[in-house]
Amino acid sequence: MQQAHQLDATFAALADPTRRAILARLAKGEASVMELAGPFDMSQPAISKHLRVLERAGLISRSRDRQRRPCRLEAKPLAEADASLERYRQIWEANFRRLDALLEEMTAQRKPVKIEKGRRKP
Amino acid sequence: MQQAHQLDATFAALADPTRRAILARLAKGEASVMELAGPFDMSQPAISKHLRVLERAGLISRSRDRQRRPCRLEAKPLAEADASLERYRQIWEANFRRLDALLEEMTAQRKPVKIEKGRRKP
Repeated sequence: MQQAHQLDATFAALADPTRRAILARLAKGEASVMELAGPFDMSQPAISKHLRVLERAGLISRSRDRQRRPCRLEAKPLAEADASLERYRQIWEANFRRLDALLEEMTAQRKPVKIEKGRRKP
Repeated sequence: MQQAHQLDATFAALADPTRRAILARLAKGEASVMELAGPFDMSQPAISKHLRVLERAGLISRSRDRQRRPCRLEAKPLAEADASLERYRQIWEANFRRLDALLEEMTAQRKPVKIEKGRRKP
């Protein structure tokens, strides 16, 4: 899959709370469809549909073990999606730094606090 | 917007290359629709449609300045989407660590290298 198409597929797959919960479960280790369906109060076909979306997007793979076919997380496309958010991270970190600087300035402008028995009052 | 719905909207908005490119442009600073449409070889209505998706998802805001209405990036939902990928990050970092350990082991098992005039041959 081309990188732009892979990102489209990754983000589209992530745009659903059940699929995010399935990925979170698989982050802890492999699981079968039965095991995945358990906590969701969802039919196995409904879970299977979500698994097909995740598998097509390359976010999970399924073992060839025909009895159980456990699903496992494929972290690479998630790492790529995360890396693509990197350029925005600089923006929000700059925002946080501005906020920190503002708070420091406000603190510096405050009157000296009264120290009482070694305990500083807010 | 509830957090799960916000994440749905954020990831759905990110699942398109034009919208990701618009966000990347806005990460550098405010821009008008005209300025955004320029590099995309796309009509202004097409760009406006993408902007509406981004605005509904809360990823951009538009100034009330009626003449130009510049768009700006709203980093908070992107920071939340990034944070939600945190739990998978542990998985791929563990994968990288395993790979590093394997490489180190392979290097340690190699025969001693021949040093020639202070230059180490691979």
